[in-house]
Amino acid sequence: MKDILLIPDSFKGTMSSAEVCDVMEKAIRTRRPNASVVPLPVADGGEGSVDAFLTALGGERVALRVTGPFMEEVDAFYGILPGGERAVIEMAACAGLPLVEGRADPARTTTYGVGQLMAHALSRGCTTLIVGLGGSATNDLGCGMAAALGFRFLNAAGKEFVPTGGTLADIHTIESDGRLPALSKATVVGMCDIDNPLYGPSGAAHIFAPQKGADAALVATLDRGLRAAAGRIKTQLGADIANLPGAGAAGGLGGGLVAFAGGRLQMGIDTVLDALDFDRRLENASLVFTGEGKLDSQSLRGKVVIGVGRRCKRAGVPLVAVVGDIDGTDGVYEEGVTAVFSINRKAVPFAQARATSKEDLYGTMENIIRILEAPT
Amino acid sequence: MKDILLIPDSFKGTMSSAEVCDVMEKAIRTRRPNASVVPLPVADGGEGSVDAFLTALGGERVALRVTGPFMEEVDAFYGILPGGERAVIEMAACAGLPLVEGRADPARTTTYGVGQLMAHALSRGCTTLIVGLGGSATNDLGCGMAAALGFRFLNAAGKEFVPTGGTLADIHTIESDGRLPALSKATVVGMCDIDNPLYGPSGAAHIFAPQKGADAALVATLDRGLRAAAGRIKTQLGADIANLPGAGAAGGLGGGLVAFAGGRLQMGIDTVLDALDFDRRLENASLVFTGEGKLDSQSLRGKVVIGVGRRCKRAGVPLVAVVGDIDGTDGVYEEGVTAVFSINRKAVPFAQARATSKEDLYGTMENIIRILEAPT
Repeated sequence: MKDILLIPDSFKGTMSSAEVCDVMEKAIRTRRPNASVVPLPVADGGEGSVDAFLTALGGERVALRVTGPFMEEVDAFYGILPGGERAVIEMAACAGLPLVEGRADPARTTTYGVGQLMAHALSRGCTTLIVGLGGSATNDLGCGMAAALGFRFLNAAGKEFVPTGGTLADIHTIESDGRLPALSKATVVGMCDIDNPLYGPSGAAHIFAPQKGADAALVATLDRGLRAAAGRIKTQLGADIANLPGAGAAGGLGGGLVAFAGGRLQMGIDTVLDALDFDRRLENASLVFTGEGKLDSQSLRGKVVIGVGRRCKRAGVPLVAVVGDIDGTDGVYEEGVTAVFSINRKAVPFAQARATSKEDLYGTMENIIRILEAPT
Repeated sequence: MKDILLIPDSFKGTMSSAEVCDVMEKAIRTRRPNASVVPLPVADGGEGSVDAFLTALGGERVALRVTGPFMEEVDAFYGILPGGERAVIEMAACAGLPLVEGRADPARTTTYGVGQLMAHALSRGCTTLIVGLGGSATNDLGCGMAAALGFRFLNAAGKEFVPTGGTLADIHTIESDGRLPALSKATVVGMCDIDNPLYGPSGAAHIFAPQKGADAALVATLDRGLRAAAGRIKTQLGADIANLPGAGAAGGLGGGLVAFAGGRLQMGIDTVLDALDFDRRLENASLVFTGEGKLDSQSLRGKVVIGVGRRCKRAGVPLVAVVGDIDGTDGVYEEGVTAVFSINRKAVPFAQARATSKEDLYGTMENIIRILEAPT
C-alpha cells in the first residue's frame, strides 16, 4: 500500500501545521481506516518547530532546565534528530513571548537560555544546530546566547555583563577566546521566514519590538543599541551583519547566530523538505495533501504549497492543496498542485469562520476523499 | 462516451439554474473539451421555468400577445414540449412582478393572460398544461384566468366583470357553462414549492401581498376577498379550496387552477425529474452534478439535491453537489450525494461573496474535475 503524505503549512491564526495534520488524518481514516497516512507537520521556526521535526522524523526530545527571558530558570527542551548529528532548537522554548506574558520588556529579556540549549546539544555531540527564530520576546542581538556559549562582554569600565536590549549600547569590548571549541566546528542554521535587517526603519526594533511591549521611546533606544552593537561586532569580530537580510529576526538573534556562531540564515520550505527527506518519501506515495491559511500570489514565493508542489510534479504524485482562502490560482497548477479546495463552507467573515476551522477542514477533507473514491 | 449530467437548483439570489449549468459546463470543457455534457436546468415554477424545460427537453417556444397584469397587451410566451402533448406555462410571463415594477397593485392586477396562454395551448392540441406559479404580481384567485377560459363572474346586480384582488368580494354568481370544452379533458398541473393556504394568517394576502405592494389595510381587504370568493366557489362550483395546501400560491392562482381548471398542485423535484425522464438519462451517465444556494436540513425535504440524490443512488451513479453554503451534511451522503463542495473560496460575508459567485463556482468546478483526473 502506498502512502498518503500530509505536509501542510500552519493556517495562520487558526491551526498549527500539526493540528492540520491531525484533522486531515482523522478525516482520511473515517473513509480509509487502514490507509498508510504519514503526517509531516512543517516547522516554521516558531513555537512547535521542534515537535514538528520530531513528529515527522522521530528522534529524542531533550528536556532541560535553562535560563529564561528574565534570567530566571525555566523548563525548556530541544530535539535531537535520528542519527544524533542534528539538533533542533526553537528559541521560543526559553525566550518566547508566552513566557513573558504580562511582563513583556524587550529592554531586559535575554537569549541566554538559547545558548545553553545549543551548548547542551554540542555536548551531546551534535554537529548541526537548527535554530528556529520565531516568537521571540527579546531584542538582545543574541548577546545572551553568545554569553552562554563563552563570549564575554565588557563595558567601557571593563566590567563584564550580559547585554540585553536596553544595554546593547554599553558594549565596549567583546572577547571570544572563551567560546566553546565545539561551536567553531558546528554547522549552525537559523530558520526564519522574514528578511528584515538588524536595525533601521525595517529592523528588529521598529518592526517587531512594539509587539514585544516596547513603546516609541524604547523602540528608539533598542534600535540605537542594535546599531551600536553591530558596530562593535564588525570591528572586533569581523562580522558585518548591518545589512544582512534576516539579521533582524528574533530581536537580532538572526544576526547574532551569524556573528557569534558562524551560522547562516535560511528561509523557505526547501530546508525543511530536505530535512524531512521528502523526495525519498514521494517514491512510495500515491497522494499528497498540503495546505495553508491563504493561497495567493505570495504562495509562489518559497512557501510550503509551492515548495511541495514542485517536488510532487517532478515525482508525478498528485498534490491536493486544502487552504483557508483562495485568492487566485495563477501559476499554482503549473507548479504541481493538482487541485485546490477552500475550507470555507459558509459565506461568513473570517472572524466568524475561524471558530469552525477544524470542522470545516474536516468536512472538506472528508469530501475530497469521498470524491476520490467515486467510480468515474 | 458516457454523459455528465448537470441538474442544479438555482442559487437563490445569485444564479438561476440555467446560469449554474452554463458555468458548470464551461468549467468541465476547459479540462474535457469533448465531454458529453447534458445541462438540465431545473424549473421551479418561477421566471425561467419554460426555458428550463425547453433547454432540457427541446420543444417549441410559442410567442403570444396576451393581456398583461393591468389588462394592457404584453408579449408573452409558453412552451410546447416534444410530442406536442405537454405545454409549459409560467404565470410570470404575463402576470409577474417584473411587469408591474413601479406600479404594483395586487388589488387591480389580473391573471387573464395566463388563461389566454392556457387556451392557446389547448387550441394547439395540448392535453397536459404545466403551470408555473412563481413570481406573481396578482391576488385574484385565478379569476382572471378563469374568465379567459370562459367562466363568467356576475356581481349582485347581475353585471358581468372580471374580478381582481380588490373586487373578489363582489362575486355573486359564477357561471361555468361557457368554459372551453378542451379544458375539462386536459390534465392541469400547478407547479409550486409553497404550501400556504388561500386565506388566513398564512394565506396568500398576509404572506405574499406585502411584497406585491399591499399595505396593511389592503392585505385585510384582499384576505376578506379571497375568503368570500372561496365561499362562492364552494357553493356554486362544488370545489372546497379553503384548506388546500398551496392554494395560496401566486395570489390564489394555485387554488384557482384546482377550482376552475380541475387541476392539481405539485411540489418538489420529482415532478420535474419525471418530466425530464431523468431515470432513463442516468442509464448512460458516468457522473452527475447538482447544486443549490444552501445545503442544510431543509435540503432533505423534497429539494433538488436530495431528489436527484435518491435517483442517482438507485442507479449507482456518483453525484457531486456544488453548493453555496454548507450548513450540515447529516443524512446527505446516505441520500446518494457522493461529495459536496462549497463554492465559497474566501471568508467573506454573503453580501461580498455573491459578487463573485460565478467565478467561485467556476473555480470550484474546475478543481473538482482536476481532482477526478488525479491518478490515485
